[in-house]
Order: sequence, then C-alpha cells, then structure tokens
Amino acid sequence: MAGLFHRRLRLRTALRWMSPLSTASPPAVVRTLPPGFSSGLLQTPRPVSCGVRCRELHAGEERPTPSPTAAPERRPFSRVTPEDMAFFSKIIPGRTITDPDILEASNMDWLKSVRGFSEVLLRPQTTEEVSQILGYCNSRNLAVSPQGGNTGLVGGSVPVYDEIILSTALMNNILNFDSVSGILSCQAGCVLESLSLYLEDKDYIMPLDLGAKGSCHIGGNVATNAGGLRLLRYGSLRGTVLGLEVVLADGRVLDCLATLRKDNTGYDLKQLFIGSEGTLGVITAVTILCPRKPKAVNVAFLGCESFEQLLQTFQLCRGMLGEILSAFEFLDRECMRLLNTHLKLANPITDCPFYIVIETSGSNPTHDEEKLHQFLEEAMTSSQVIDGTVATEEAKIKALWSLRERVTEALTHDGFTYKYDISLPVERIYQLVTDMREHLGDRAKSVVGYGHVGDGNLHLNITSPTKDPNLLASIEPFVYEWTARFQGSISAEHGLGLKKRNYIYYSKASLAVALMGNIKIMLDPKGILNPYKTLPDDLQ
Amino acid sequence: MAGLFHRRLRLRTALRWMSPLSTASPPAVVRTLPPGFSSGLLQTPRPVSCGVRCRELHAGEERPTPSPTAAPERRPFSRVTPEDMAFFSKIIPGRTITDPDILEASNMDWLKSVRGFSEVLLRPQTTEEVSQILGYCNSRNLAVSPQGGNTGLVGGSVPVYDEIILSTALMNNILNFDSVSGILSCQAGCVLESLSLYLEDKDYIMPLDLGAKGSCHIGGNVATNAGGLRLLRYGSLRGTVLGLEVVLADGRVLDCLATLRKDNTGYDLKQLFIGSEGTLGVITAVTILCPRKPKAVNVAFLGCESFEQLLQTFQLCRGMLGEILSAFEFLDRECMRLLNTHLKLANPITDCPFYIVIETSGSNPTHDEEKLHQFLEEAMTSSQVIDGTVATEEAKIKALWSLRERVTEALTHDGFTYKYDISLPVERIYQLVTDMREHLGDRAKSVVGYGHVGDGNLHLNITSPTKDPNLLASIEPFVYEWTARFQGSISAEHGLGLKKRNYIYYSKASLAVALMGNIKIMLDPKGILNPYKTLPDDLQ
Repeated sequence: MAGLFHRRLRLRTALRWMSPLSTASPPAVVRTLPPGFSSGLLQTPRPVSCGVRCRELHAGEERPTPSPTAAPERRPFSRVTPEDMAFFSKIIPGRTITDPDILEASNMDWLKSVRGFSEVLLRPQTTEEVSQILGYCNSRNLAVSPQGGNTGLVGGSVPVYDEIILSTALMNNILNFDSVSGILSCQAGCVLESLSLYLEDKDYIMPLDLGAKGSCHIGGNVATNAGGLRLLRYGSLRGTVLGLEVVLADGRVLDCLATLRKDNTGYDLKQLFIGSEGTLGVITAVTILCPRKPKAVNVAFLGCESFEQLLQTFQLCRGMLGEILSAFEFLDRECMRLLNTHLKLANPITDCPFYIVIETSGSNPTHDEEKLHQFLEEAMTSSQVIDGTVATEEAKIKALWSLRERVTEALTHDGFTYKYDISLPVERIYQLVTDMREHLGDRAKSVVGYGHVGDGNLHLNITSPTKDPNLLASIEPFVYEWTARFQGSISAEHGLGLKKRNYIYYSKASLAVALMGNIKIMLDPKGILNPYKTLPDDLQ
Repeated sequence: MAGLFHRRLRLRTALRWMSPLSTASPPAVVRTLPPGFSSGLLQTPRPVSCGVRCRELHAGEERPTPSPTAAPERRPFSRVTPEDMAFFSKIIPGRTITDPDILEASNMDWLKSVRGFSEVLLRPQTTEEVSQILGYCNSRNLAVSPQGGNTGLVGGSVPVYDEIILSTALMNNILNFDSVSGILSCQAGCVLESLSLYLEDKDYIMPLDLGAKGSCHIGGNVATNAGGLRLLRYGSLRGTVLGLEVVLADGRVLDCLATLRKDNTGYDLKQLFIGSEGTLGVITAVTILCPRKPKAVNVAFLGCESFEQLLQTFQLCRGMLGEILSAFEFLDRECMRLLNTHLKLANPITDCPFYIVIETSGSNPTHDEEKLHQFLEEAMTSSQVIDGTVATEEAKIKALWSLRERVTEALTHDGFTYKYDISLPVERIYQLVTDMREHLGDRAKSVVGYGHVGDGNLHLNITSPTKDPNLLASIEPFVYEWTARFQGSISAEHGLGLKKRNYIYYSKASLAVALMGNIKIMLDPKGILNPYKTLPDDLQ
C-alpha cells in the first residue's frame, strides 16, 4: 500500500505524449469534419445531442486550444481510498497489486509513447470477480482501464491518469474446443500464441495471426478488432468471433457466449464490443471459429518495377492462386534499405522499387506448388515481376517472412518514427507514400511504405533523427486529410485509443460519431470504462 | 385514394395468424427465460429497465393470456390522412400506391401465413426520398413497414396492421464496382440474382446465394442477415458487408457506406442494422466484398447409413477438400420419399437413411477433381459412404442440387407444414429430428430434417394433412425447449419477425434482450419502424 496516495501532483499533470500543438494550415478537403472541428484541432466543444443524458464536457473554451492528441483534463472520478483497497483485497486476495515496479510495466504502452499513473493493478481470475470489481467501481465512480497483453499502438491499453488497471492476465483458461466444428471457447486472457500452439496439436489454427502474438491476449484482440496477417484468407473477427461474454460497466454479466455459426435471434450485441477498445464493457470470454491447419504452406518473395505492376500481380495472383492465397504483403525499396542498413538482412533478389511477399496455404502440397509455379511463370512471362524466389521449407519461409515482419524493428534503428495505419482503396495506397515524400522533401529522414495489399492497408512510417515537432506539424493533419479525401480510414487495424480519438471525424460522419456517444452513455453512463479513449473529446 | 379510409373495422381486428393458444406443459429445461415468461406464454409483462425512457407497455394483465405468436394489439400510431397522402404524393409523385390489388401482394407474406392491412405503399427511388418520408412519418407518428423482396419466412416483411409499406423495389441501381478489390456498392433494392448476373460478366460472384435469389433484395438480405448456401465458404454478411447507408427513424441519413476491408475508427455501427429486420433503420445502400468466380464447380451426392457416418464424412471432407469445399448439405430418407412421391424426382443412388450434397468451388479444375476423387475413394474405402455419384457438368450439377433445394416444394405437397430453422452444435442437429419423431408419434404425417451441416443449421419440418392446433401444441414449445437445452438458436437464419419474436428468450439472455430494447429506444424512440417485430412484446 506504501506510496499509493503520494502522487497527487503528478496525477494532476495532464499526460502530454509525443505530439505538440499542430501548426499546419487548414484542411483543403475533409469529408466529415463536424462544426467546431478543423485543421485537426479542437475548437469549441459541441454538446452531445443524445436525448439520453449529457455528461458535462470538459471546459475547452477558457483554455488555450489543446492538441487533439493530448489527453484531456482528468475527469472527476473518485480517487482510490484505503477502503477501496480493502474491498479489492477481499474480492481477489493476493491479486491486488500496488508494487510500483510491477505497475510501471502496466502504466506504459509498449511503444513507450504513452504513460499513465495508476497505483492499483487488479488481476481477477474469473468473470464473477470482474463483475464484482466493476460493480463496485461503478458505484464508487472509480475509473477502470482494462488491459490485455498491452501491445496496442494507440495508447488504448494503458491508463491516462490514475485509472485502476484491470488485467486479464490470469484469465487464461481454455474452456472448450469442439474438434468437429473447430469452435474454441476460452477466457479473454489467453495469449494468442498459446491458443495457436494448443490448436496445432488438434490440426487447427487460430483465424488471426499478428506480430504481437507472443504477448497479446485474445480478449484484447477482440476488443481492438485486430487484423493481422491472415485476414485476407480467413476474414475479420466480425465473422469468426461467434460469441462473447462481457461484463458491463455496472458489473452485470452479458452472456452472448454462443458457439453457433448462425444465430438470427435479435440484434447481434457482441458486435458492439468487438473493436470498442474496452470502452463499452470488459470482454471476459470468447468463442471463435478456427480453420483447419493447412497441410502445405509456401512463400514467394518477388520484385516489381512499379506499384502498378504490383497491383497487376495481385490481380493475377487472386485469379491463379484463388482459394490458396493466404497473404499478399508488400514493402518498398526504402524498407529494404533499412533492413540492409540496420539489421544486416540481405535482399534475396535483385534490387527493385517494390517487393511482394505472397503466402499460400492449402490442403494438398502438390496442387499448391503447381498453382504457385504456374502463377510465377505467368507473372514472369508477362513481365509483371522482374525477379523472385520461392520457399517451401519452414526455415526459408521464416527468413522470407522476416523481411516483411522486421521492417518495424529496422525503423526503430533509423530514428524517431511517426507511424500511420491507413486503409484506402487498394489502387491508392502507395500514392500516399509518394505524395508524403514529395510533401516533406528533405525534412524527413525516411518515408517508407509497407503493409497488407490484400486488405488495402498501408503502414506509412516517417523517421527523423530525433523527435521533431515541426516535422510532425508537416505530417499531420496532411496525412489524415489525404486519407479522408479518398474515403480511407485513418486507422485500419490499430484503433483510435488515446492518440487518435480526436481524428475520428476524418473517417466517420458526425451523425455516426454522435450515435457512438449515445451507445457509450447507454452502456456506461458514468463513463468509468477506459475513459479518454476511442471517442473524441467533444463527446466525452 | 378511393377506399383508403373505409376499412377501419378490419384494421381494428388484431391479426391472428396460424398459431393458436399453446396448451403444452411447462418447460423442463430452459436456459434464459426471464421472470414472467414460461411455457412459451407471456404472462406479466416486465417494465423495461433501460435508464433511457420507457414506452408504455401494452397492458397484458387485464386480458386473457395471448398466444406468443399472435400479434399484440395495434399501438396508438396515427392513421394515414388525406393530408399525409398529399405529402407523399408530392415527395414521390406517381409512386404512392393505394390500388388494393397491388397492395394485396405487399400485405401478404410469401408463405401466405401473415397478412397485414396497409392501404399505402410508397416506392421511393432515392435515399433523400426515404429520408423525407421517414422524417415525416416520425413527426406524424405513422408506423412504417420496410419491405424488400418480401421473401421472409417469419412475417417480418409485411405490415401487421395499417403500417405504411415502404418498398425498396425502385432503389435498384448499382452504384459502383471496383474490379481490383471486388467491392460492389449498390442501392438496397437490387435483386440478389441481378447482382449475381452483373458480377458474372466481371468474373466475380456474390458472397451469398439463396433459394429466393430471384426476388429477394440485397437490402432485405442484409436486414435479415441472410445465410444461405455459400456461408460455409465465404462467411456471414457480418464479414462481407463493408458498408451501409441507413435512414434512421427520424429521417437522418447515417452514412457508413465505406468501401474498405479494414476500418477501426470507433464502434462499427453498421453491425447494428445487419439482422435487425428493419426495426432500427431502413437500409438504403450496401457495399459488399465479392469473391472471384470459381473456375471449377463439382457436386457429389452421397449416401450414409447413419448420422454418425455423415459427421465422419464431414470431418474427412473438411480435411481433404479443405479450401475448395463450398457446401456440405444433407437431407434424410423422409425427404427423399417426399421428393419421389410428390415431385417424381428419382434417387440417383441406393436408398439410404441420409444423403449428402457436397459442392467444391476452386480455381483449378484438374486439382479440384483430383481432390474430390481422393476424398471419395477414402470415404468409400473407410465405409463412411455407401454409395454416391459425382457431377461436373452444369446440367447434372443442377439436377443433384435440386434434390436438396426442392425439399421445401415437396413438403408443400405433403400437407400443412410447420417449419423450424434451428442452429445447434453440429453433433446434435439430427437428434432433434429423431426426438421430435418419437415425441409426436403418429400425430404428425411426416417429420423431416435437412439443412446446412457445415453451419450446424437444421431445417426441421413437420407436416399434417391439415392445419392442426393440437399438433402445433405438441411441437411448440417442445422444439424451442429442446433447442435451448443444447444452447442452440431457435432461428439460425430466418430471423424472428412477427412469428418468433416472443421466443427470443429461448436463445438470448434476459439482459441481452433488455439491451436490445434500449437500442431500439435509442434509435427509434417512437417505435415507428417495423413495429411488433423482432423484439418480444414485453419490450415493445
């Protein structure tokens, strides 16, 4: 308990993460900016028109205009008292953590870009415990930051101020697996990779895979609607998640834990919680439909002269590989340069402006290889692809994949990195990189593009030797306005969290955002769940 | 306008469709019945605990307990006046229909089991017109029944009393098709088959296919979360629908018409409208992700000695056909008898207790045939399958498919049919048929089972020479209680509509249903959209 109540001053200092006040000029074309929102800067907050009940908005007019990425003022939640701690210790004895060293890891996101100041970390093991904790916190007006593996990229998984951290780390039991249907039920804290290993024995795989699989929790994956590397083949979690158990803000347990592929009895409530980043409820259990483990996996690494050729290759590939295509990823020449320079990874083919990673997964090794070779022959003959290599053994497959997967790591060695996760019509995705490069000129060290072509998802990354407010002001809101102009999404798979909440209007209409506010108020009227996240400040 | 206001007496007569008062005994095991709900009969309606605003519930306590399938009393909506008609005629000149002959078809569902008494049919062409109509109806407190192709099976697509019918029939323009991404945008009134034909030229297909494709509208498909024959392969509409445009009850247009595979900016509002049966908003446009047209399609028709063997065949098939498996359907011996007797369709193989239709769709005809033959050899060798035939040409494929698709038609010749659309863990689906047969003994003429094994979806049909209230009382709530006992869904793909609204508690927890009520009140506070549907009477 020592040190728990000694940091009030620090708590009162609003968190200011990497982003300074934007000084860019007003946007040229922006699709859905609401009244009072321009240039990516919040001006006069609008009242929420919800017909339900309006929470008091934080007073914005009297203060200097804040950056849209800065945390808003701490809301008037209660502070944790010794009586509260006694209650928690009674509910989950030995799992109420106040040790500052342990708390440090839970207060900081893994990009080390956002830091909260929570002094209490709770580790329930059961849904009933989560229910009791939330029921209590709601009655006491204590804010709660639900946390899975804490691998999020937008500051959604750490507290902003002194919110109680509610970790799912000890909720890691597999509840059931039906080997006929491939339906897995498990607690929310199961680590994605553990689930994958569990299924491997049973000849199944998880329908999603991502770089953070060794740490991320399935509950967090669902709460953030994680995309990842298998989406092209197995679709999004909206289709594969069959059921959820969720504890609502007031502690009531919502049982939507169906294990059925089809169920049209009323509104599909579980969808509300998929991708809501812990702001509407705490996911405590998940049922998910798992595909059979493929009997054969092949990877091809190819080079193209232009992005047009890359897109032609994508088209050809979809036609010729059809049902066995499981990934179509790309990286540009700049990415390869960073891989060479910082990680000493060698380019396995000729130097090219664009590189493609194609993966096939299928049930018949001979058929798959045949399809892949026919495709490659056609791609080379028609000059869409100028060089390439293919891997069928696991070690070589891993080596080729690492060229795509380790770009993030290479970037961290290049300098301070500004990261954007953009969804666009697939024809447009690289144009943003080219335009950004031209727009920034020599102000940026590197401007690189890579990502999931098959999903129209670009990861745009910009580096500079050090953190550079002027550079950031040149990037934002330029990148968001550009995306909005082409009806893209300013967050394809990372979510909005704390960092991007105020940019929502670039991708969503004002009416849509207002309805989201109504849903939040309906499910969490006191706003205790993951406050300051996902919804823009004018709705909070 | 003649005859429009002359039927008040008829309108005041509450619609009573086929179902009489249930006389069955109380349920043995029911998962989620709320207080005041037992034996499938409504007793004391509970107030809605919503924290938002509660509509007055229809007074149930003073009246004799109604059948849960009967329509509740007409709610105090306004009646259409000549002034209203003048307004509609101004908004959509020439498309405000009062001709009783035309209205007849729109008032009756296609099973001819539910009939409304609307005197006004509106046929808007644009979203703006829908917006103006709903804005007006909401302000005037006029109830509206949205209607697509009117092919629903649960009385969801026709008015119950004098609700204005809002048809999407003239909203049938394709808005855009992106041949790189396969993303189609169209108005809600496009007929599914027209869209399929449009895409065929472009080497794509719709991700869903169903028997009613020649009449059903894509908007209606989305509003009912239609399943159909391709779900096993291409997943549900929750994953393939990328965007929706919806007009809310008050006329506001909610633009969620994204054309992106990934978008994690805030809550996914469009999911609320998928499967909400027109009770939360009127879908006016849809964007949907379409798969490439397969280059090869094969169909196998197989026979098994037992349902266990059928399930083993399903497992083998998933392993060996893997990514090319596009349907795994079944019918039982009783179905085959009805096909023989009533439609003179010959059984192409030996007489068996169970028949399977397997479809493969793939990108390489040689590979697909090879996979199919390897699978068949294995299935025959291991004695899972006792006889079978395979088709690769279109005419023979059609003939084999018709054995599965024409069961419904054969049933109509067998007598009055009680239809159930049940989702269960796949191991259980046929047990319900066996148990029902035993339960009914010789009270039923035929008890047959067929459906989508791959989706765990059973179509249970029971016939009798004529409509038979005593037989129905033996079937219901037995069928629902049985389903609830095994955590099944009492409506896998048909929805709840009018007919099944009060059975929702067999598949959904009370808290879930209460939240649905809150969502309805949030989006349609006056309850004008498709009243008496989807939600149970205690929430209406």
